[in-house]
Amino acid sequence: MSFSYHYIDILNTNKLKDTAILLLSCPDQRGVVAAVTDFLLKNDGNILTLDEHIDSETKQFFMRVEWELKGFGIPQDKITDYFETLVAKRFELGWKIEFCKCIPRAALFVSKHAHCFFDILNRWESGEWKIEIPLIISNHEKFKPIAERHNIPYYYVPINKTNKKQQEAEEKALLDKYNIDFIILARYMQILTSDFIKQFPNRIINIHHSSLPAFPGANPYRSAYERGVKIMGATAHYVTEELDAGPIIVQDIIPISHNDSIREMKRKGKDVEKRVLAQAVWEHINHKVMPYKNKTIVFS
Amino acid sequence: MSFSYHYIDILNTNKLKDTAILLLSCPDQRGVVAAVTDFLLKNDGNILTLDEHIDSETKQFFMRVEWELKGFGIPQDKITDYFETLVAKRFELGWKIEFCKCIPRAALFVSKHAHCFFDILNRWESGEWKIEIPLIISNHEKFKPIAERHNIPYYYVPINKTNKKQQEAEEKALLDKYNIDFIILARYMQILTSDFIKQFPNRIINIHHSSLPAFPGANPYRSAYERGVKIMGATAHYVTEELDAGPIIVQDIIPISHNDSIREMKRKGKDVEKRVLAQAVWEHINHKVMPYKNKTIVFS
Amino acid sequence: MSFSYHYIDILNTNKLKDTAILLLSCPDQRGVVAAVTDFLLKNDGNILTLDEHIDSETKQFFMRVEWELKGFGIPQDKITDYFETLVAKRFELGWKIEFCKCIPRAALFVSKHAHCFFDILNRWESGEWKIEIPLIISNHEKFKPIAERHNIPYYYVPINKTNKKQQEAEEKALLDKYNIDFIILARYMQILTSDFIKQFPNRIINIHHSSLPAFPGANPYRSAYERGVKIMGATAHYVTEELDAGPIIVQDIIPISHNDSIREMKRKGKDVEKRVLAQAVWEHINHKVMPYKNKTIVFS
Amino acid sequence: MSFSYHYIDILNTNKLKDTAILLLSCPDQRGVVAAVTDFLLKNDGNILTLDEHIDSETKQFFMRVEWELKGFGIPQDKITDYFETLVAKRFELGWKIEFCKCIPRAALFVSKHAHCFFDILNRWESGEWKIEIPLIISNHEKFKPIAERHNIPYYYVPINKTNKKQQEAEEKALLDKYNIDFIILARYMQILTSDFIKQFPNRIINIHHSSLPAFPGANPYRSAYERGVKIMGATAHYVTEELDAGPIIVQDIIPISHNDSIREMKRKGKDVEKRVLAQAVWEHINHKVMPYKNKTIVFS
Repeated sequence: MSFSYHYIDILNTNKLKDTAILLLSCPDQRGVVAAVTDFLLKNDGNILTLDEHIDSETKQFFMRVEWELKGFGIPQDKITDYFETLVAKRFELGWKIEFCKCIPRAALFVSKHAHCFFDILNRWESGEWKIEIPLIISNHEKFKPIAERHNIPYYYVPINKTNKKQQEAEEKALLDKYNIDFIILARYMQILTSDFIKQFPNRIINIHHSSLPAFPGANPYRSAYERGVKIMGATAHYVTEELDAGPIIVQDIIPISHNDSIREMKRKGKDVEKRVLAQAVWEHINHKVMPYKNKTIVFS
Repeated sequence: MSFSYHYIDILNTNKLKDTAILLLSCPDQRGVVAAVTDFLLKNDGNILTLDEHIDSETKQFFMRVEWELKGFGIPQDKITDYFETLVAKRFELGWKIEFCKCIPRAALFVSKHAHCFFDILNRWESGEWKIEIPLIISNHEKFKPIAERHNIPYYYVPINKTNKKQQEAEEKALLDKYNIDFIILARYMQILTSDFIKQFPNRIINIHHSSLPAFPGANPYRSAYERGVKIMGATAHYVTEELDAGPIIVQDIIPISHNDSIREMKRKGKDVEKRVLAQAVWEHINHKVMPYKNKTIVFS
Repeated sequence: MSFSYHYIDILNTNKLKDTAILLLSCPDQRGVVAAVTDFLLKNDGNILTLDEHIDSETKQFFMRVEWELKGFGIPQDKITDYFETLVAKRFELGWKIEFCKCIPRAALFVSKHAHCFFDILNRWESGEWKIEIPLIISNHEKFKPIAERHNIPYYYVPINKTNKKQQEAEEKALLDKYNIDFIILARYMQILTSDFIKQFPNRIINIHHSSLPAFPGANPYRSAYERGVKIMGATAHYVTEELDAGPIIVQDIIPISHNDSIREMKRKGKDVEKRVLAQAVWEHINHKVMPYKNKTIVFS
Repeated sequence: MSFSYHYIDILNTNKLKDTAILLLSCPDQRGVVAAVTDFLLKNDGNILTLDEHIDSETKQFFMRVEWELKGFGIPQDKITDYFETLVAKRFELGWKIEFCKCIPRAALFVSKHAHCFFDILNRWESGEWKIEIPLIISNHEKFKPIAERHNIPYYYVPINKTNKKQQEAEEKALLDKYNIDFIILARYMQILTSDFIKQFPNRIINIHHSSLPAFPGANPYRSAYERGVKIMGATAHYVTEELDAGPIIVQDIIPISHNDSIREMKRKGKDVEKRVLAQAVWEHINHKVMPYKNKTIVFS
């Protein structure tokens, strides 16, 4: 029998907000805000939050609006169709609608580092994050027992120089089978191929230490130590084909002093990595992040 | 003849953005956003930024929208009238409009601490802040020479136990004469009377150290030292009748360790005070702050 | 069979540094540093780190020195005796010696909040912290399954208005039985009695939110929300008889904005609480903390 | 007549602590701490602070000790000689002694950015920093009036492609004439030659924005903007022959969001630059910084 007190929180979707979130973007033009709010207003949509942003350089327009579905005049399954017809087409919007009762399904990729992996499981298990984690994929067997005690299927998919394409195909099949919405790379120490990445645009979240690009190579902590840095940080970003260079979601740092040995720097690095990755996932699952070109808008 | 390289930046209002900023608030109701954006759209107003907020507890609605005056169909001097008639009256809005070309005029109140005072003069003199400082008021003569070298009139208004009411009347007359928009208390060590404060609602910005309310009394740094605090901070707020308890605009902290003597704590305290006060003034002069009840919305 | 990959790290004390740490304090007087270093030098002790501090107000002297036991001329079990006779007595030192191979044994007290509890278990399980957690004590049954899956005895000790003295006596017996070195209150929502606290001077670590003393009472987050605070924090401290007023070990904050609902403030509060408590435990188990009067020296 | 209220603080050296600070370094070896403290003890030196550090990788030993000169048995002008003979020679120490009553003399180099320049003048003028600023050197005439109002000689030394060697020679002559201890590059936008730098080893403090090495080139703020960074920072360091790669003294960051235009990023960048440079100068003038190889120990 499995222990599952967290399901109380997680699976009771009646306790989730019954709202819709519209995210849209287009070259700045007059009338978009009025058209969108008018669309919601005429159909008795009660707006809870509305955020808007115009990129000061590219003049691209971004908007996020959340409204209550209770009392909204258009049935949930027809909102997309109506919005496309009545608003989006007219302004040539890029857009999507998310429903808060639809719990995001995350695949967790991990190698041998525990810190991000454990932290994510905690936030899920304690009900802090309203997500499903239907499977864990790893190139090592190390964390299988951890997955088992949480009753999460654990797929051991070892990668070597010759089998990556084939193994990624297997991973892709698993992700399809489990109907995954997005992937969290919890210190997954394999470089994904372009082919794989292309299938999950802005849906793979990675964390890397801030030593990049200052301290590339095999032992960045030693390089940073020898350089005598006074801060160290981490960057959570969407994965793109260019390694560690995708749209940044969250960055943060911790202070370092001469007292910190390489070992202590690694410990501190882990703390900031898990904090930054968690914040990035939080923004993502709350549909706050809008990627554009190689950057993100993260609405507050 | 006085040196005045900063006037290049400050007084050339042609270099300022030619925009209007509308700040409004009302109990949440349908249609406000649509009505406002419609008002701007129909008159060819090009919206640069639009922010909106709904207080999750009181359901009060807040909005800030900035648009270009160039090409806007309503003459600048009639915008207020038209907006009142066409929009504000219908929704019973609290609102105001600011024009970026109208440079805010700040009175600087100071006693004997130099850190905030100097920092503010710098930001003004270097053109970082687009404000006027038409006068300085102090209960000490100490900084008169500083004012003189900047060609700012310096009024020495000493306060004692019996003359406060009368001296504040004189200050009020000065502020009127110089057509002051808001007051910066740059570590002004006098308590203002309710009568004075009432005449500048949400227009007096004060800074106090974070030791409140933990360490009140004559020597808060000693109390904080003896308590062994590990952080110290500062709070910038609008002045209300309740001492140091008005709407908070900015707060921040700095780390403290056992190595910090009371003297070093004071030095660090000054640094965070000047940083926090400057940030608060920046938000204020950019019309980002909306007070409501005893808190603020600070749009980003 | 239980999963226990962490034992690899934790119980192999051969992998721990074979060092001793001497912590001492006395009114400042000449000759202490020389006497201590001389004591170590004459016995071939290789000093790894030496930190010293003099409180600038009370002139109390503090020192922490760590040296290698390998090659040290005095057998480990006689160091205490020799140091007392040859150095400590002469200077009337308050002092203690810790050996890094002696793994601290922590009792975990928890109620119903998961965030600190899970985080601590992770740091222990992943081997980040070299500690033992021989038992968990709670006034609720909620986390029993979590304890079971880690094979940690879980004692459910409910507290009500009449049984606290008796239940604390039982807890004390458990702590003695398991040979506990210190207690971590991972959001344990019971006030300990003076009698209990006195038995663990500077050996009970608690975490409380930063709203104290500004926002006491039943719903501090609501008070902080209504006050419109722009930062929120947490304080980890040793428990003393005066509630939440013991020597502070670590404090930190996170930024808050008007966008944060009370619910979001609670979420952010949890994050800073678990971070601050973890850092405090880390300093404690590395024997970096020296309490004095009502404050701490935390050597870096 | 010139206004000079700050001289009250600055030139009254009787108000400065009458202490000596010994900074020393050597490969780690037994007996150094004991020998030094013994040297001070035997001559009735009252130690105020003692800090020690061993680099965990190179095993280099560092020590900073401050003691009162009042009552010290060796006359101030003979301390160097005695210490060399009795201690330093035996351990082959690298070392120096500083006396707190000797006010450091800083040359200020500036180009056209006001933020660091003004901030430094303020800290000097208000007496926060106990330093002399005997001259200002600039490759532009812009700030001459500012220097004049502070009665600081201002040398306009324009640099072009062909005259750098010759102009640096003139600068060197000025620095010698004014008996300068160290140089602050307050956003001085010229690259110093190796020849010049070699004459001031670890005595030139520079500030650069954190975009290095990530965003080199002519417009780093635009690059950072387009990359969508979420933090921006600054690094203060000693100048070495390798551009912007000398020993780091202080680093810090500020948060950035998508709301920050390039212009706003620059404004925030200035704030963090002036804060970081000021902290670095503070550590330097308090003799807290020990460079070693390409890093620094900054004692707390």
